[in-house]
Amino acid sequence: MRHILSTQQFLNRKELAGIFKKADVFEKADRRGEIAKPLRGKILACLFYEPSTRTRFSFESAMLKLGGQVISTESAGHFSSAIKGETLEDSIRIISGYSDMIVLRHHEPGAAERAARVSDVPIINAGDGDGEHPTQALLDFYTIQKELGRVDNFKIAMAGDLLYGRTIHSLIYLLSMSRGAEAHLVAPPALRLPEKYKDYLSSRGINFFESDNLENTLAKVDVLYMTRVQKERFASARLYERVKDAFVLNKELLAKLRQRAVIMHPLPRVNEISQEVDSDKRAAYFRQAKNGLYVRMALLDILGKRSPKTGGKKL
Amino acid sequence: MRHILSTQQFLNRKELAGIFKKADVFEKADRRGEIAKPLRGKILACLFYEPSTRTRFSFESAMLKLGGQVISTESAGHFSSAIKGETLEDSIRIISGYSDMIVLRHHEPGAAERAARVSDVPIINAGDGDGEHPTQALLDFYTIQKELGRVDNFKIAMAGDLLYGRTIHSLIYLLSMSRGAEAHLVAPPALRLPEKYKDYLSSRGINFFESDNLENTLAKVDVLYMTRVQKERFASARLYERVKDAFVLNKELLAKLRQRAVIMHPLPRVNEISQEVDSDKRAAYFRQAKNGLYVRMALLDILGKRSPKTGGKKL
Amino acid sequence: MRHILSTQQFLNRKELAGIFKKADVFEKADRRGEIAKPLRGKILACLFYEPSTRTRFSFESAMLKLGGQVISTESAGHFSSAIKGETLEDSIRIISGYSDMIVLRHHEPGAAERAARVSDVPIINAGDGDGEHPTQALLDFYTIQKELGRVDNFKIAMAGDLLYGRTIHSLIYLLSMSRGAEAHLVAPPALRLPEKYKDYLSSRGINFFESDNLENTLAKVDVLYMTRVQKERFASARLYERVKDAFVLNKELLAKLRQRAVIMHPLPRVNEISQEVDSDKRAAYFRQAKNGLYVRMALLDILGKRSPKTGGKKL
Repeated sequence: MRHILSTQQFLNRKELAGIFKKADVFEKADRRGEIAKPLRGKILACLFYEPSTRTRFSFESAMLKLGGQVISTESAGHFSSAIKGETLEDSIRIISGYSDMIVLRHHEPGAAERAARVSDVPIINAGDGDGEHPTQALLDFYTIQKELGRVDNFKIAMAGDLLYGRTIHSLIYLLSMSRGAEAHLVAPPALRLPEKYKDYLSSRGINFFESDNLENTLAKVDVLYMTRVQKERFASARLYERVKDAFVLNKELLAKLRQRAVIMHPLPRVNEISQEVDSDKRAAYFRQAKNGLYVRMALLDILGKRSPKTGGKKL
Repeated sequence: MRHILSTQQFLNRKELAGIFKKADVFEKADRRGEIAKPLRGKILACLFYEPSTRTRFSFESAMLKLGGQVISTESAGHFSSAIKGETLEDSIRIISGYSDMIVLRHHEPGAAERAARVSDVPIINAGDGDGEHPTQALLDFYTIQKELGRVDNFKIAMAGDLLYGRTIHSLIYLLSMSRGAEAHLVAPPALRLPEKYKDYLSSRGINFFESDNLENTLAKVDVLYMTRVQKERFASARLYERVKDAFVLNKELLAKLRQRAVIMHPLPRVNEISQEVDSDKRAAYFRQAKNGLYVRMALLDILGKRSPKTGGKKL
Repeated sequence: MRHILSTQQFLNRKELAGIFKKADVFEKADRRGEIAKPLRGKILACLFYEPSTRTRFSFESAMLKLGGQVISTESAGHFSSAIKGETLEDSIRIISGYSDMIVLRHHEPGAAERAARVSDVPIINAGDGDGEHPTQALLDFYTIQKELGRVDNFKIAMAGDLLYGRTIHSLIYLLSMSRGAEAHLVAPPALRLPEKYKDYLSSRGINFFESDNLENTLAKVDVLYMTRVQKERFASARLYERVKDAFVLNKELLAKLRQRAVIMHPLPRVNEISQEVDSDKRAAYFRQAKNGLYVRMALLDILGKRSPKTGGKKL
């Protein structure tokens, strides 16, 4: 059995290629309305201690499309015996008795790791606080491959909050597997990428450039990965006001982006990408969200088959 | 593809008759436990920004009985990325990638219309603020047909809050298609039907009479459609106290109602119909709620078959 | 048709044996991944006016494993038309039109009884305030049978809050059917078992002993059933401090427990059983939680077959 806890467990080109190929297969089958039901009879528990309708729906839809069933809680943190003082470990021990896989969303970094230690069934980390959200990183990288047609030899700008952005940090690990990739790290001075990630890029031979100017970067890249710059991250409102407009992609800036570039965003977006950009064919963020469905189907399929409960015999 | 956004899109006797016939067929099949599963493999997303357990359960049960599956949120407004500032449009774009139909309940009038503009899949309006709740109107009209055995030549009293009552306004549109219908509009002076609806009735040749006396109306009608008179709607508690008792259907008033009349209510009722009325065979409001299941099955079946995702080939 | 409202309706050894045998069969089938789907086409409504993720998941998983489907509300009390003043009875009348069985969790004692009076479909009481939680009692007793291999001739200690502990009170009814059982009632003076339950034990010929010393009891019993001692139950913090440590099962106390004894707990546990106890093979509380799945499958199977909606013909 295996869990999905961290992006770093996928630093294997061959394994990634296998997952992405499976995602492709599921997408095609879905279009034809002819998905096999490999997880028939299996139950996925969605245990969300903090709400995330999008992520939850994406996993639930993936499970149902594979023929499985779902039990689900929108906001266990407000509700459940967590209030009475039950540990996460006890909750997981019990719920793993009622399900074949558990998707866990929790506010504490390391929660998924703790859950995996006591669970009888696979744990899938769907975000643990400032920690990891590995399936987001996988769908991001899958989107790059799908939109560009390659995972090597491309230039990517990562723009916005690189200091706290969980999705940025996870993507950097996957990016490090690309050959000939080049990263443009575009952030306000206060929100630069932490040293440890820059060291990691260096150690893996990925060239990177730091800047606080989005506009000048646009003509240089194949992928523009936008994230939000949140007011709360700044020491003062004045500091925020000074930089915020420079990190909004609007039609004017769009004109400077390469014709075959790809615009990505982990969503939700607020105003860091203007709505006028949505109709541009380079805007890939809604396709990116949809890709999440197929990547998650691939992952559920892999984990579901490995589940010790069936011994894999019928799969 | 089509959406269900407003009652006014159903102002077509032939189409209504088709929907109602389908509802009849599903009811009979349900009784025999032999419903076909035309929506097998389809997923309905229930996206409720404000909670409505009854309406949600009714749609979910309808979808499951048709062989489909459901992903659901009880109260997206409190929880989801709406809090982070995501627009309804973005949420719909994403969720329409995870589902084949979306039932939307939202607090803002026009929300369903906005959703439909960006959705890849059919949107069903399950109530948008003071706006529309078309499936309620359909089940109301279906109940009239089923209880009376006809949709023409009947007299209906609509009693209670005719000023704000969304269900009343929607029903008036459907009523306008009846031949020889007569409407008795019974409301406290402060809660009379807005002019636009009276004009509409006139333009469609439906006779109507206004009054504030429920008691005197009872002997005249085939259908009594009750709604709640809410204290908050009155300028003062004194004004409310003066009228409230006149709009409570109790056993005493019941005696004045025609022997073959039908009592309806959109529910929830509080005290505008006394519980002593429940056992009267004319009390149709719980049958009315149940009819909602079959009308919604009919609508889901129609929309599900039209969904572009399958091209309708297997249906 | 029958409802599950109270533990006392199961005071029949033969009926209990039938339920437990069915639970055994389902467990074995589940292990082989070969459960029949007797409830295919049936819908279970989980109507939780107060949240209980564990109990809800357990029922939902049971229903899905039997081939049925689920509609569910996590916290109807905060959300639904209950807020608008609808009675429980009206809610049940309506929801019983959308489902084949209803699992009800409510904060008011007697709620399940009231629901059963108006429901068209079986009601299962999943806890009504300080009232009953019969399926918990059944899974407790099932666990004793499974762990000890017998339901007669055993000694059980019930420790903790015997005054308010709903699970203790329910278990006492089932215990009264055992031949040669002996009960050790271990509680702080302020939280002793109410007279009515002691009278009941006496009337059924069950020997019992009262004490406030857990340590001295451990060597005498085959089953140790722990419950929480809540601070709020004490008149003063000082009174609580004086007794609380005596009711915590830790590794030291564990050494005094019989080698083949069984440790049970209705869960959630907070600190009344130290985590160091979890790895002891006598610690049966997580197995006990899992047993709940199979007992509930047995009960749903029985009720589902009796449901008047199908006339039982296909079952």
